[in-house]
Amino acid sequence: MAIAMDDLVLVSVDDHMVEPPDMFERHVPAKWRDRAPRIEERKGAQLWVFEGRALPNIGIAATVGRPREELGLEPNRFEQMRAGCYDVDARVRDMNANGTFASLCFPTVPGIHGNLFTNVEDRECGLVMLRAYNDWHFEDWYGAHPTRFIPLALIPYWDPELAAEEVRRMAARGCRVFSFCQNVAAMGFPSFHHEHWDPFYRAVCDVGGVLAVHLGTSGKPMFNSLDAPFSGYLAQVNIDMASFASDVIFSPVLQRFPLKIAMSEGGIGWVPYFLERCKWINERHSIWTHDDLGGKKIVEVFREHFLTCFIDDPCGVEMRDKIGIDCISWECDYPHSDCTWPESPEFMSEQLDGLSREEIDKITHQNALRFFDSDILEKVGRENATVGALRAQAQGMDLSAPSAEGMTGPPKEKRQLRVSDLMYQLQSTL
Amino acid sequence: MAIAMDDLVLVSVDDHMVEPPDMFERHVPAKWRDRAPRIEERKGAQLWVFEGRALPNIGIAATVGRPREELGLEPNRFEQMRAGCYDVDARVRDMNANGTFASLCFPTVPGIHGNLFTNVEDRECGLVMLRAYNDWHFEDWYGAHPTRFIPLALIPYWDPELAAEEVRRMAARGCRVFSFCQNVAAMGFPSFHHEHWDPFYRAVCDVGGVLAVHLGTSGKPMFNSLDAPFSGYLAQVNIDMASFASDVIFSPVLQRFPLKIAMSEGGIGWVPYFLERCKWINERHSIWTHDDLGGKKIVEVFREHFLTCFIDDPCGVEMRDKIGIDCISWECDYPHSDCTWPESPEFMSEQLDGLSREEIDKITHQNALRFFDSDILEKVGRENATVGALRAQAQGMDLSAPSAEGMTGPPKEKRQLRVSDLMYQLQSTL
Repeated sequence: MAIAMDDLVLVSVDDHMVEPPDMFERHVPAKWRDRAPRIEERKGAQLWVFEGRALPNIGIAATVGRPREELGLEPNRFEQMRAGCYDVDARVRDMNANGTFASLCFPTVPGIHGNLFTNVEDRECGLVMLRAYNDWHFEDWYGAHPTRFIPLALIPYWDPELAAEEVRRMAARGCRVFSFCQNVAAMGFPSFHHEHWDPFYRAVCDVGGVLAVHLGTSGKPMFNSLDAPFSGYLAQVNIDMASFASDVIFSPVLQRFPLKIAMSEGGIGWVPYFLERCKWINERHSIWTHDDLGGKKIVEVFREHFLTCFIDDPCGVEMRDKIGIDCISWECDYPHSDCTWPESPEFMSEQLDGLSREEIDKITHQNALRFFDSDILEKVGRENATVGALRAQAQGMDLSAPSAEGMTGPPKEKRQLRVSDLMYQLQSTL
Repeated sequence: MAIAMDDLVLVSVDDHMVEPPDMFERHVPAKWRDRAPRIEERKGAQLWVFEGRALPNIGIAATVGRPREELGLEPNRFEQMRAGCYDVDARVRDMNANGTFASLCFPTVPGIHGNLFTNVEDRECGLVMLRAYNDWHFEDWYGAHPTRFIPLALIPYWDPELAAEEVRRMAARGCRVFSFCQNVAAMGFPSFHHEHWDPFYRAVCDVGGVLAVHLGTSGKPMFNSLDAPFSGYLAQVNIDMASFASDVIFSPVLQRFPLKIAMSEGGIGWVPYFLERCKWINERHSIWTHDDLGGKKIVEVFREHFLTCFIDDPCGVEMRDKIGIDCISWECDYPHSDCTWPESPEFMSEQLDGLSREEIDKITHQNALRFFDSDILEKVGRENATVGALRAQAQGMDLSAPSAEGMTGPPKEKRQLRVSDLMYQLQSTL
């Protein structure tokens, strides 16, 4: 490889945190404290309870460190997870062990895109908790190690002006990445294409922000039936990002706003086909469907607005020139079951073999830091951000997961898992 | 190119016929004749009426021959279409003009997979009409030029034993391809994975048959909102085939039956990524999700069961070795708006440049004829089946479409078409 594994600088644009039990304590005003989500013990499990409703997962698929046989639906208790899931200092130690220099973390409890706070009946309560969430993420998670994270905030979907306000509030603090779902229409709001969202889009663009759009947020089930093999569901969640990209690439919104959109956990191998297909449609059909791409080619629109990322994606890396070397980035997906921790550098070495130094630097960190407008690498210095430098700090660390005892694991009988076996967990992602 | 354009032999595995007004006359028993679908004139348009219900389209997107500016939603009247849409002799002349040796045609009026006859309340009536449809297709369409078509039949979904019976009845006549939808669960029946379908699967395998699964038959809308750009919808319909393939590749059904499944109009460029993703899941997750692939690798399962096809797909052709050269075929999609008629040989020459003779023959016709078990090329002789030989019979033909006057075309104002503008038409595909 053109860069030795130890000299790679890895910035992951898609990881997840499991929220610690005390996360709301410091950030919810006193008069609202009773209403904040809190952890309760129920039949040996720990569950978040909010507005009278128990939420299915404290940490969906937070199985990092387990042997593959013990991957499963979710941990029931914090002590079943590696501390790196919910403790930011432990997280940084886990990042060191994996040679991960920096990480962009999505939530768990409020839903990947924060829909929990929008779905609550009392809007005022929703807003208080959403802001508390953003403050916790910014101050306690990102703020604990500000050179190791790219902060992300949630938005109140129910009011674009309020969303714009939250964008400006968080941007003033230094957070310019906003989790947004694949399909706001499925949440019951006007679609992505509607002028309804203009105040929000304007605010995001004004602050030089990014919409981070994570897979699994389209509001539609990604399985054909409840008895469908669960592995088939896993196989289609990434490629489904193409339906979001299709919806957006022809959208008039992109002609009104220079939106930057990160497609989180979407993979990259489908992108060349997708771009060819859109080009075909643009050349063949736009003359009667009257699409307006502002005189640009499809591939130009794509590269101007989108950032892609991958975990392990040999096809996509091979076809990087068709995607655009400047819009590909890397993700670890810690602590979920697809993550390559603690061997991401080894996985990346294999995939990046044959690429130039310049290409490797772009994919591993430069594109991510540019797209999310982060200067942490300059602050820290490359020599302190490499796989080698970080792993040196983690020598001798215990890389195992705690006992899975009591975890909601696979059914005891060895029969194929179907979607219905995991429906309870999947609910929280919808 | 390793084979001169005129020496190509082109077999299209996905075309469509528009049913002619008299199609049911000969094939419905006298006592049922009044109940057969019939064409009625309504406000200047011709419409099929069946069991009191007017069907939206006589020929969805049957716009072959039109300049791109005049592509549109559908023709309202037969005289707005090229006769090749609904007249089998004219179709063969159009195939000659395009150098298409043979064609597999899907229906229009009954839905691509024949759901019309299943959705009718009176099961007996549905069965009579479905059989009449199959008889018409076999006798009047395929039967008029049996060396130029691969016949296809519809099945009564509501009863797997009855479906098995229809499979055996049609196979005895010489038809072994059966249109099947992407998601029977969405039709309200047990899923693809359920033993419910075993009698049907058994019959298909017993007769050496093929399930032809066409895009757009998943029963789910492939757009995020009604105001989504229509071009975005067009962009996602093909790649959506991946959700069908994901559902099926891990299905226990493939371990019980050696089913052959053609993914019609699904494209091929997404397949390498899809196979990589499934391989990742199989290697990483099957140990806890307990998938049973019978000891085979994902790619082996795929190649054993699936046939893919493409219209214009440079990425897919480039990555053919990852897909499997033996499971790629070609389609024309006549008479729909994506079809390359009358220039398919020119499109194919460009795409197949750089491939070996062997690869070109496999993609253009050998794989299709083997998969669908057709001996028409031996019957006719290659020298009579080539682009050059066929086009020689079509010299001087008028290749234009009739006037689009009165056709439901794009709205007069030049504004971007949204899904809602075409919803009336899309209904009939769901």
